[in-house]
Amino acid sequence: MLYRRELLGEASPLTLRYTSSMEYDKLIACEVLEVMGAYIEELRELKVVPEDAANRILGELENLIAEPSKLFHIKAEDVHEAIEVHLKEKLGSDAGYIGLGRSRNDHVAAALRLKVSRLLLKLLKSIVGFRRTLLSRASASINVLIPLYTHSQPAQISTLAHYFLYIDEMLSDYSSALVKALDITVRSPLGSGPAAGVMAPLDRGRLASKLFGGMLAVNTLYASGGREFSLITLALVSSLLVSLSRVAEDFILFSLPQVGYFKLPAGHLATSSIMPHKVNPVTMEIVRAKAGGVLGKFVSVASIVKGIPSGYNLDLQEANRPVIEALMEAIDTLEVLRDAIENVEVNAGAVEGDIKRYPLLASDIAELIALKTGKPFREAHKELAKLVKEAKNTEELYNRVREAYNINLNPKDAVKRPVNGSPSPENVKSHMEKSLKNIEEFEAELSKYSFLEKSRC
Amino acid sequence: MLYRRELLGEASPLTLRYTSSMEYDKLIACEVLEVMGAYIEELRELKVVPEDAANRILGELENLIAEPSKLFHIKAEDVHEAIEVHLKEKLGSDAGYIGLGRSRNDHVAAALRLKVSRLLLKLLKSIVGFRRTLLSRASASINVLIPLYTHSQPAQISTLAHYFLYIDEMLSDYSSALVKALDITVRSPLGSGPAAGVMAPLDRGRLASKLFGGMLAVNTLYASGGREFSLITLALVSSLLVSLSRVAEDFILFSLPQVGYFKLPAGHLATSSIMPHKVNPVTMEIVRAKAGGVLGKFVSVASIVKGIPSGYNLDLQEANRPVIEALMEAIDTLEVLRDAIENVEVNAGAVEGDIKRYPLLASDIAELIALKTGKPFREAHKELAKLVKEAKNTEELYNRVREAYNINLNPKDAVKRPVNGSPSPENVKSHMEKSLKNIEEFEAELSKYSFLEKSRC
Amino acid sequence: MLYRRELLGEASPLTLRYTSSMEYDKLIACEVLEVMGAYIEELRELKVVPEDAANRILGELENLIAEPSKLFHIKAEDVHEAIEVHLKEKLGSDAGYIGLGRSRNDHVAAALRLKVSRLLLKLLKSIVGFRRTLLSRASASINVLIPLYTHSQPAQISTLAHYFLYIDEMLSDYSSALVKALDITVRSPLGSGPAAGVMAPLDRGRLASKLFGGMLAVNTLYASGGREFSLITLALVSSLLVSLSRVAEDFILFSLPQVGYFKLPAGHLATSSIMPHKVNPVTMEIVRAKAGGVLGKFVSVASIVKGIPSGYNLDLQEANRPVIEALMEAIDTLEVLRDAIENVEVNAGAVEGDIKRYPLLASDIAELIALKTGKPFREAHKELAKLVKEAKNTEELYNRVREAYNINLNPKDAVKRPVNGSPSPENVKSHMEKSLKNIEEFEAELSKYSFLEKSRC
Amino acid sequence: MLYRRELLGEASPLTLRYTSSMEYDKLIACEVLEVMGAYIEELRELKVVPEDAANRILGELENLIAEPSKLFHIKAEDVHEAIEVHLKEKLGSDAGYIGLGRSRNDHVAAALRLKVSRLLLKLLKSIVGFRRTLLSRASASINVLIPLYTHSQPAQISTLAHYFLYIDEMLSDYSSALVKALDITVRSPLGSGPAAGVMAPLDRGRLASKLFGGMLAVNTLYASGGREFSLITLALVSSLLVSLSRVAEDFILFSLPQVGYFKLPAGHLATSSIMPHKVNPVTMEIVRAKAGGVLGKFVSVASIVKGIPSGYNLDLQEANRPVIEALMEAIDTLEVLRDAIENVEVNAGAVEGDIKRYPLLASDIAELIALKTGKPFREAHKELAKLVKEAKNTEELYNRVREAYNINLNPKDAVKRPVNGSPSPENVKSHMEKSLKNIEEFEAELSKYSFLEKSRC
Repeated sequence: MLYRRELLGEASPLTLRYTSSMEYDKLIACEVLEVMGAYIEELRELKVVPEDAANRILGELENLIAEPSKLFHIKAEDVHEAIEVHLKEKLGSDAGYIGLGRSRNDHVAAALRLKVSRLLLKLLKSIVGFRRTLLSRASASINVLIPLYTHSQPAQISTLAHYFLYIDEMLSDYSSALVKALDITVRSPLGSGPAAGVMAPLDRGRLASKLFGGMLAVNTLYASGGREFSLITLALVSSLLVSLSRVAEDFILFSLPQVGYFKLPAGHLATSSIMPHKVNPVTMEIVRAKAGGVLGKFVSVASIVKGIPSGYNLDLQEANRPVIEALMEAIDTLEVLRDAIENVEVNAGAVEGDIKRYPLLASDIAELIALKTGKPFREAHKELAKLVKEAKNTEELYNRVREAYNINLNPKDAVKRPVNGSPSPENVKSHMEKSLKNIEEFEAELSKYSFLEKSRC
Repeated sequence: MLYRRELLGEASPLTLRYTSSMEYDKLIACEVLEVMGAYIEELRELKVVPEDAANRILGELENLIAEPSKLFHIKAEDVHEAIEVHLKEKLGSDAGYIGLGRSRNDHVAAALRLKVSRLLLKLLKSIVGFRRTLLSRASASINVLIPLYTHSQPAQISTLAHYFLYIDEMLSDYSSALVKALDITVRSPLGSGPAAGVMAPLDRGRLASKLFGGMLAVNTLYASGGREFSLITLALVSSLLVSLSRVAEDFILFSLPQVGYFKLPAGHLATSSIMPHKVNPVTMEIVRAKAGGVLGKFVSVASIVKGIPSGYNLDLQEANRPVIEALMEAIDTLEVLRDAIENVEVNAGAVEGDIKRYPLLASDIAELIALKTGKPFREAHKELAKLVKEAKNTEELYNRVREAYNINLNPKDAVKRPVNGSPSPENVKSHMEKSLKNIEEFEAELSKYSFLEKSRC
Repeated sequence: MLYRRELLGEASPLTLRYTSSMEYDKLIACEVLEVMGAYIEELRELKVVPEDAANRILGELENLIAEPSKLFHIKAEDVHEAIEVHLKEKLGSDAGYIGLGRSRNDHVAAALRLKVSRLLLKLLKSIVGFRRTLLSRASASINVLIPLYTHSQPAQISTLAHYFLYIDEMLSDYSSALVKALDITVRSPLGSGPAAGVMAPLDRGRLASKLFGGMLAVNTLYASGGREFSLITLALVSSLLVSLSRVAEDFILFSLPQVGYFKLPAGHLATSSIMPHKVNPVTMEIVRAKAGGVLGKFVSVASIVKGIPSGYNLDLQEANRPVIEALMEAIDTLEVLRDAIENVEVNAGAVEGDIKRYPLLASDIAELIALKTGKPFREAHKELAKLVKEAKNTEELYNRVREAYNINLNPKDAVKRPVNGSPSPENVKSHMEKSLKNIEEFEAELSKYSFLEKSRC
Repeated sequence: MLYRRELLGEASPLTLRYTSSMEYDKLIACEVLEVMGAYIEELRELKVVPEDAANRILGELENLIAEPSKLFHIKAEDVHEAIEVHLKEKLGSDAGYIGLGRSRNDHVAAALRLKVSRLLLKLLKSIVGFRRTLLSRASASINVLIPLYTHSQPAQISTLAHYFLYIDEMLSDYSSALVKALDITVRSPLGSGPAAGVMAPLDRGRLASKLFGGMLAVNTLYASGGREFSLITLALVSSLLVSLSRVAEDFILFSLPQVGYFKLPAGHLATSSIMPHKVNPVTMEIVRAKAGGVLGKFVSVASIVKGIPSGYNLDLQEANRPVIEALMEAIDTLEVLRDAIENVEVNAGAVEGDIKRYPLLASDIAELIALKTGKPFREAHKELAKLVKEAKNTEELYNRVREAYNINLNPKDAVKRPVNGSPSPENVKSHMEKSLKNIEEFEAELSKYSFLEKSRC
C-alpha cells in the first residue's frame, strides 16, 4: 500500500487480495532479502548511500532473514513492499535509500532465479544420488533375471541390473539437459531496473559475483522481464517426471499380486481402512500422479507467459509459485523413488514362474534359427510361430526347438545377447563403469555451482 | 498411522510426507466432517451403532466442525485417519464404530463432491451477479459509442451496451453448461464403499437427502472411483476463464494511454515503485494470467486421471487441490472483473478522437453503396477502397462518399444496423429484456440447490 | 490473393503458406459452401441480389459441393477466398455479389459451428449406441463374477454387469453435458458481419432456420468472434476421452497374461514382428493414447484463445483443426471401445482362480462380523486382519471365519450387497431399466437436432 | 496385415484404421527407408544375409526412397509392414531376410530420432540465421529510439538495437538448450531389438556411424522404448515458441494504429474482405497462435507417455506426429518472424510523438535527483511524483526538473545508462561483439552434426 497511496489511494480489500503475491512470496522471501542485502552492499561500495544508513539497513535485513515471518503480518502488494514498510518502521526515512538503481522487476527476477537455481542444484544432486543407488543395486543384480515387457505383455528375458541401467541412462540425459537449464538460470538480473537499466552506476558484474557466481543476464529487458529460465526449467522437469512415471508404473505392474516380481518396502505401502488383505503401492501412485501435476504447472506457466508483451507484466507473478512447487515436488519424487529402488526386493519365485510360463526366449530362438540355418528370418519366425502354436507349454516349446534345430537356450544364457547395451553381464559391467565415470565428471561440473549452497536461507 | 501400524509398521517421515494429503485436506475438512456426521446419523437410524455411541461421536464431530484445526496437529495419512485418531482419543473404543459401511473412497468422494458443488453454486451466483451488473451498465450506455476491434485494429463502430451484451451472452452460455456440471456433481456417493458397495444395509437415498438433496451417484464403482464431476467442472471453468481473459485483454488494450477509451477505477491500478508516471492495469493482468493458471490445473487433473485403472487409486488425491483452488480463483476473478465493469469509465474524448481518425464506417458505407446502386458488392468495395486510399483523412473520405453516392452516414446512425444482435438501441433493448428474463429463470433453477448453502462450514 | 492484391500486392510464398488455412479448410469446405448457399438464398429473397445472378451462384456452389477438390488447386488465404476466385472465373463480375452483408468472420464461424454440431451429434449417437451395447452385454452378464480393483490390487468381488453399468453411468453424465455443448454450438452467427453487424437487412432468424434449426448466436460480437462453443465442446470431449482411457487401462490390465480375465477379440490384437508368442492389446493402447492426444488439442485451443482481444483475430484459425480432429478421433474411439466391449470374452477360469487366491470377500466379512457381534467395526476389522495374517490361504481364511463367527459367505452371495448401485442382480436390473428409459428419453431429445443430418456433405 | 494374418486373421477395417500409423508415417517414411538400408548393409557386412539378397533389397530401398508414395497404397499397420509387403512382392522370399536382429521398436525409434535430429539441426540453423538478422538490424539501429513497455504502459526510453539484442540473448539461451536436446536425440537405437537386445552380432557402433555420427543410445530398453528425446525436444520447442509469442505481441502492440512505432512489411499484412481501411498483422497473429498450438502438442506427447510402462507400447505411435509437426511449425515461425524483423520499419514520427507525450525519462530523473542530492531515493521519487502530477505535460515536467535540480536530460542521453546491458551505444556494441563471437562458436559446434544433412530424403 506504500507505493500506491500517494497517487491512487488505498486499494480495496478485494483487489488487494487478488493482486497481492504475499502468500506465494513466502517461498522466495529469504532470497528476496539476500538479493536486497547484496544490492545494498553494492550501493555502499559505490558510496551512493551513506555507509551508516547502509549498515543499518543491512542489519535489519539480517534480522528479517532470521525471522522472515515478521513480514507476513504486513498488508502489502508483495514482499518487496512489505520489506520497505518494515524498514521504514524500524529505520525511518533512511529506509528510503532502498529504491535507487533498482526496481521490483529486476529484484523479483533475481530472487526467483536464485531460488530456482538452488532448487535445480538440489534436484541435480538428487539425480546424482539416485544414479549412485541405481549403480549400486545394478552391481548386485547383474545375474538377477526379470522379464521385460512391451505392450504390457512379457516380451524378453533380461536382468534387474539392465533394467536399472535403463533408468540410469535416462537420468544421465536429463542431468545434461537440466544442468544447461541451471546454467541459463544462474544469471544475475540485478541492475537491469524496470526494463532498460538504471542511472545508478552499479557494477553489475560485481553485484553478480555476490550471489550468482559472477554470471549475468546481460540485456536489461531480457533480465527484468524474461522468464525463459522458468519455462526451460519447468519444461525439462515436467518431462523428467513423465519419464519417472513410467518407472512408477513398472513398479505398480510388478507389484500386482499376480505378477509379483517386486516386493516394495513397507514404507511405500499402505493398507486399506476397510479391506485387511490389501497392501497398496501408494508412493508409486503418487509418483505417477506428480507427473500429471507438474505437467499442469508447466502448462500454467507457459500459457501465462504466452502472448503477453515483452517486459514485466504482473501476469508473471502468477508464474512463480508453479515453478517453485514443481521443483520441490520433483526433488521429493526423486527421493521417494530412489528409496523404493534402494529397498525393493525381487521375488525370485514369481520371476521363475513366469519364465517357465511364457516363451520369453522366443525372439532369441527365432534369430538363432535364422543365423544357424541361413534362412530368411521371416521363415525362421514362421517355423517357430508354428511350434509356439503347437506346444502345450514353454517347456515343450523349448524341447521341440532343441530337437528340431539343436538350439539349447536357457534364460541365463539368453541375456548374454552380443550387442552393446544388452543385459549380458559383460555389457552391464562396461556400462556401469562408463556411467560411474560420467557421474564423477558430472559432480565435478556441479561443484562449479557450490556457491549456491552458501546461503543463510 | 492408525491403519497401517498393525500390518506394515510405521511409515518413514519421507514417504508419509509424500503421500499424506493432510495439507490439502484443510480445504475439505469441514465437508469431510459433515459427511461423517450424516453417515453416523444413518447408522444410528439403522440401529447398527448403539445410539449412545453415535451421539457421542456426533457431538465430537460438532466440536471438530467448530474447530477443525485440532485435526491438523495429528500425523496422519489424511483427514479421515486424523478424525479417527482424534475420536479414539476422546471416545476410546467407541470411535471404532466408525468404519462400518464406509470406506475412505466413498467418503472422500462425498466430501469433494460437496465442496465442489458449493463452490460451483457460488460461482454460478457470481455469474448471475456479473450478468446483472452488465445489464445495468448496458442499460445506461445504449448510446455510448465505442469502436470494436478485430485483429487488434479498429474495425466497426458500436456501443458500450453492445459490448457488454457480448459478455452477457457468453456468460449465459457458460451458466447453462456449468449448471449441468453442478447437476452431475451434486450426487451422493455415500454407501458405495471401496468399489462394489457395502454390507451394512444403508438407505443410500436417505443418506443422500441429508447433504445432496437426495440425488445419487448410483453405480458404486462410479461413485467411489469416478472423478468425472471434477473433470467436467474444471474443463468448463478453465474454458470460462479463457473467455474472460479476452475481456481482460480488451480492458488492457482500451487502457493503453494511446487508446484510452477506458479509465479503470483506482482500485484496479497500481503504481510503479520506480516510475512515478505509470498506472498499471494490474487486476486485468492477473485476470489474464488466471486463465493460464487454471488451464494448467485442468491439465493436472486430466493427466493425473488419464490412464489409471477404474476405481480408486491414490493418484486421485493429487487431483483434489487443483479443482478446489481453480473454483476459488474463478469466483474471485468474476468478482474482480465485475467490479471493474461496474466502475469503469469511458473517456468520450478518446473515443471521439478515434472515430474521427479511423474510417470505422467503411464497411457500412460499402454495403450501402452496393444496396443503393445494385452493383455487386465487390465493385462497391473496390470503389470505396479507392476513396479510402485517396482521402487524406476520414472526414474527407466521408465527404467524398456523400458527394459520390449521396450517402450521409454518421456514427450514431451507423450503429443502427438492421440485423438482430447489432448495437442498434432497439436490438440492444430487446436483447436486454430477454437476458433479464433468462437470468430470472436461471435464478429459479439455482434455487433448487439452495440446500447446499445450509452448512456449518 | 484476391483480397490483398489491390492494397498490399502479392504475398510472399513464405507468409502465404504460413497464414493460409487452405490445408485445414478441407475439413470444413463443404460446410462453408452450404453456409454460402443459405446466405445467397437469403440475399435472393431480400431481392438485394438479382435473382438470375443468385441462381447462377447457387448452381456453381452445388457443383463445388459435389467436387470441392476443385477449390484446393487455387492459391488462396482460405477457402472463402478460393470460392470467390472460383466463382469469378466461372461467373465473372456477378461473383462479386458475394460479399454483401457478410464477412469471413461470420461465415467461418458458421461453417465451424455447423461442422462441430454435426460431429457432436454423431458423437452423441455413438454414445447412445455404446450405451445400448453396454446394457445388452450387462443383461447377459448379471451373474458373471469379476474382481474389482483399487490401487491396482484386487479389492472386492463384483459382476461384469456391474462393471459395464459403471461405464454406462459415466456416459450418461457425459451425454447430458455434451448435449448442452451441442445446444450452445448449433446457433447461427450469420449476419453478424465482421463484429458489429451488417447494413444489409438480413432476416437472421430466417437465415438460421436454413441450417441451424432457427437458433441464433445473437450478439454480433459474440457470434463473429466467440469460440466458446469450441472451448466447451473440446473441454468436454477431452474429459470424456480421459474417462475412457481408464476403461482401456482396465482392459489392458485384465488382458495381462497373469490376470487374463478378459480375452479381447482378435481384431483388437496385434502380433509382434519378432516375438511370435505375443498378442498385444493395441487398440486399447491407442484408446489410452487418444486421451492424451485430445487433451493436448484442448490445450492448443484454450491457449490460442487465451489473452487475445475479443472479436476475430487470425489466431482463431489455428483453433479450427484441433477441435474437428478431436471430435473425429473421439467418435472413432467410442466405436472401437464399443466393439471391444461387445466382443470381449470373460475367462471364467482365470476369474475363479483369483477368487480362490485373493480374499476378495474380506471387507464384506469384516462388516458382517461387526453387524453380527455389535462390536465396533475397528475391532471386527482387527480380528479379521489377524485371521488374514494367520491363514495360509483364502480357503483357510474363510473356514476360520465360518468357525469363529458362523459366517458363511460365498462370492455369488457376496455381490448381493444390499445398497443401491451394488452388483446385486436386483440392483443391476433396476439400474438397467432406468438406464434404458434414460437412453430413450435422450434419443428423443437428440431427434430435435436431426436437421443437422440433412446435408449434402 | 502381414504380421498378424497367421495368428490372428485379418483385422477389421475399423480397428486397422484406428491403429494404423500409415498416415503419420508419411512424415518419416524416408528416414525409415534410410534406417533399413543402413541395417541391411550391416547384415551384409556381417555376412548373415547373402550378399546378393542384401544388394537386391538395398536396390529396392533406393527405389522406394526415390518414390515413397508407392508404399502408401498398401494396407498396413505401419510403414515398416508396408515396406516388407512391398519387398516381398518385388523380391519374393528374399524379402524375409529383413527381420533378423531388428524389431519395429528399434527401427521406429531410429527413424524418429533421425527425423527429429534433422529438424532440430534445421531449427538451430534457423535460429542462427535469425540471430544474424537481429545483429545486422541492431547494428543499424543503435541510435533509433523506442519506448519500452511494462504492464502495457510506456515505461522507459530505449533503442531498437537494445530491443533486438533482448531477442538475441533469448535465442542464445534457447540455442544452448536445444543443442543439448540434439545431442540427446542423435543417438542410434539400432540393434536394441524389441527391448533387451538381439542375438544377431550387430556391431552397434558401426551401425551408429552410418546415420548417427557414431553416437549410441546404449541401454537397449532405453533405446527401444524411451522417448526422452521427444519430450525434451518438444518441451524446449514449446517454450521457445511461447517466448517468441511475446515478440509477436510486441509487434501487434507496436502496429496498433494509435501506437504505430512499427510498420510491418506488406507481406505480413492482410486486408479485410469487407473493411477496406484495415491492414491486419496476420503473420504475427499466427506466430502468437503457434505458441498455443505447439504447447498443446507437448501436452499431447507428455500425457501420452505419462504413466505407461517402460518399453515400447503402441501409445508411443500417437506421439510421433506432434513432435514432427511442432518442429516444422517452429522452423516456419522462426523464418516468418525473422523476415518481419528484417523488414520492419520504424515510424520515427510516432515514436517522437510518444516521447513527447509520456514522461519516459521519469525513472531516470528520479535516480539522478537522488544521486545528486544524496537524499533517500523515496524522497526523490516523491518529489518527482509531485511534479509529474502538477505538470500539464511532459515538456513542462522536464522544464521544472531543470529548474528545480539543474538536471537536463534528453532521450538520447537517457539511454546511455551506465550499467552493463543497457541501451547505451557502447554497451550495445560490446554486446553485439560478444554475441557475434558466440554465434560463430555455435556454428562451429553445429558443424559436428553436418552428417545429418547428407541424406537422400
